[in-house]
Amino acid sequence: MEENISGLTLLGLGTMGTALAHAWLAAGHPLTVWNRTPGRAKPLVGRGARIAASAAEAVAANRLVVTCLLDDASVGETLDGVDLAGRDLVNLTTGTPAQGRARAVWAAERGARFLDGGIMAVPPMIGVQEAGAFVLYSGSHDLFDEHRDTLAVPAHPVHVGEDAGYAALHDVALLSAMTGMFAGIAHAFALLRREKEISPREFAPMLAGWLTAMTSSAYSTADQLESGDYTRNVTSNLAMMVEGNATMLRTAEEQGVSAELLTPFMTLMERRLADGHGDEDTTGVIDLILH
Amino acid sequence: MEENISGLTLLGLGTMGTALAHAWLAAGHPLTVWNRTPGRAKPLVGRGARIAASAAEAVAANRLVVTCLLDDASVGETLDGVDLAGRDLVNLTTGTPAQGRARAVWAAERGARFLDGGIMAVPPMIGVQEAGAFVLYSGSHDLFDEHRDTLAVPAHPVHVGEDAGYAALHDVALLSAMTGMFAGIAHAFALLRREKEISPREFAPMLAGWLTAMTSSAYSTADQLESGDYTRNVTSNLAMMVEGNATMLRTAEEQGVSAELLTPFMTLMERRLADGHGDEDTTGVIDLILH
Ligand SMILES: NC(=O)c1ccc[n+]([C@@H]2O[C@H](COP(=O)([O-])OP(=O)(O)OC[C@H]3O[C@@H](n4cnc5c(N)ncnc54)[C@H](OP(=O)(O)O)[C@@H]3O)[C@@H](O)[C@H]2O)c1
Ligand SMILES: NC(=O)c1ccc[n+]([C@@H]2O[C@H](COP(=O)([O-])OP(=O)(O)OC[C@H]3O[C@@H](n4cnc5c(N)ncnc54)[C@H](OP(=O)(O)O)[C@@H]3O)[C@@H](O)[C@H]2O)c1
Repeated sequence: MEENISGLTLLGLGTMGTALAHAWLAAGHPLTVWNRTPGRAKPLVGRGARIAASAAEAVAANRLVVTCLLDDASVGETLDGVDLAGRDLVNLTTGTPAQGRARAVWAAERGARFLDGGIMAVPPMIGVQEAGAFVLYSGSHDLFDEHRDTLAVPAHPVHVGEDAGYAALHDVALLSAMTGMFAGIAHAFALLRREKEISPREFAPMLAGWLTAMTSSAYSTADQLESGDYTRNVTSNLAMMVEGNATMLRTAEEQGVSAELLTPFMTLMERRLADGHGDEDTTGVIDLILH
Repeated sequence: MEENISGLTLLGLGTMGTALAHAWLAAGHPLTVWNRTPGRAKPLVGRGARIAASAAEAVAANRLVVTCLLDDASVGETLDGVDLAGRDLVNLTTGTPAQGRARAVWAAERGARFLDGGIMAVPPMIGVQEAGAFVLYSGSHDLFDEHRDTLAVPAHPVHVGEDAGYAALHDVALLSAMTGMFAGIAHAFALLRREKEISPREFAPMLAGWLTAMTSSAYSTADQLESGDYTRNVTSNLAMMVEGNATMLRTAEEQGVSAELLTPFMTLMERRLADGHGDEDTTGVIDLILH
């Protein structure tokens, strides 16, 4: 461990940046910080952080420079006119794949090496080993390897490709899947909401356990996509699932719940079934949402 | 174990009914079966099943009668005119809560005791202890206790309330949440679909692991619903999540993916934010979909 305690600069001390700062300071890394609103940096001084008076001064302090700002535009604004030559820039600001790629070109033009990142955690999980948090990185694998020990401090680092856009792409894919799951969870709780005898707290472990078991669908979907055979290992076929949709819609009506969170997917399942794919499961829906 | 090997009747030998039959026969339970299309029962004879010539004859053979038919209407058709007096009817046919309640009244009028059930498994999971399958039951808890050992053979039995509609309600709530998750999974894979360098099979464990970690949201949502305080233990607030939605929509556009599976939930999040609830997470959406 000790041989790899290297110094770094962090730009951005919002909720997430502050959590990152605490993790690096706690692990003994010399840390220079800067934040647009200077007040937010002060509490970190007592923990050993050095406050830079400007973004340029912060960048000059260390080869490794991490940004954790609101969005891609704020990264551009913050580093506008700052000398990045010889720096290793690691951008932990959430963005789109195209933004990640454009930022990589922009960094190269300024003589900096670049990794784009996507943090798969909320701030309380940062620096907590067992929390299951991870950070996606894309760009040069060699650069990633050079800084791996430092990057591993806040959360488990995962390199997902040389294409600088891939961290954002994986990040957004995971967030999108989570958004769908949250919509399903909201609908489930809504169905029970008016039943005074059903305790949401008692239902929660059943729901979490069931969804966890059903994540196995990710494996069979992946297998079907890669083989090109969408009928492979189908346990519940589309014909039967569309029957089940009718029961779900009817129950939503009985319980006074709008089905708007479920109907778009059900409509696509019906379209795929009507197209003659009743022996598949839901993988074919993927083809229907691709332009 | 041996003291509770009791005989039972099973009506319905579709994919699921056949799996149930195999599980009970393998566990040594004397089993009488009936199916509308007689051919489907034949392969079970070699395993020790007794085939009844009619539903009435099957029902007469045992006190415990299990139905696993297509839908609630087929249960009514099958048992129309059959003497149910003194029978314990356990209905493992998927339906709505109202159908479960109506079927309970219908059974009582015919002198039968009644449990409604919902199978949370696909047929290959039936009778496999480690598969994580379970069956929801509602109706008399005493009746459930009387038959618990027999009911435990195909999959772990869970009693969710005396209200006969509650098995169906829990069943449909779980299926609805799964439907949302599957929609999210489809969108996630669609985002990666055109990237030849990303392997779905490599992405699957990351996706399944991430979704599993995020099922913890079920616990915080339940806690917020039960306390009535939707700002409790919020780690990502709505204001920030709505920012994230913009990144998801932009990425979908970049990758050529229709966002139709995500937009209904995003729209509700925006509505809740506009209503002044930026310090909550997504629990408030539940109130928006209740009529
Ligand atoms: N919080 C999470 O749960 C979470 C999870 C995963 C990823 N992330 C990502 O982490 C990044 C930071 O999130 P956060 O939670 O720390 O957000 P936050 O609390 O809102 O902080 C935003 C930060 O960006 C700075 N900023 C905004 N506009 C700027 C500009 N034009 N120029 C310079 N600085 C600017 C802010 O400075 P001021 O203090 O001066 O306003 C602040 O330091 C985001 O990309 C977010 O998507 C967050
Ligand atoms: N398979 C699953 O993954 C799964 C999972 C959970 C719950 N379930 C539930 O289990 C139940 C049975 O599903 P399954 O997969 O076994 O379906 P299935 O393979 O389609 O079998 C349907 C069964 O219902 C019978 N049936 C249909 N209409 C009938 C009528 N009018 N009168 C008498 N019998 C009739 C069929 O008899 P014939 O042979 O004569 O057509 C057959 O035995 C359904 O409620 C389903 O929702 C299934």
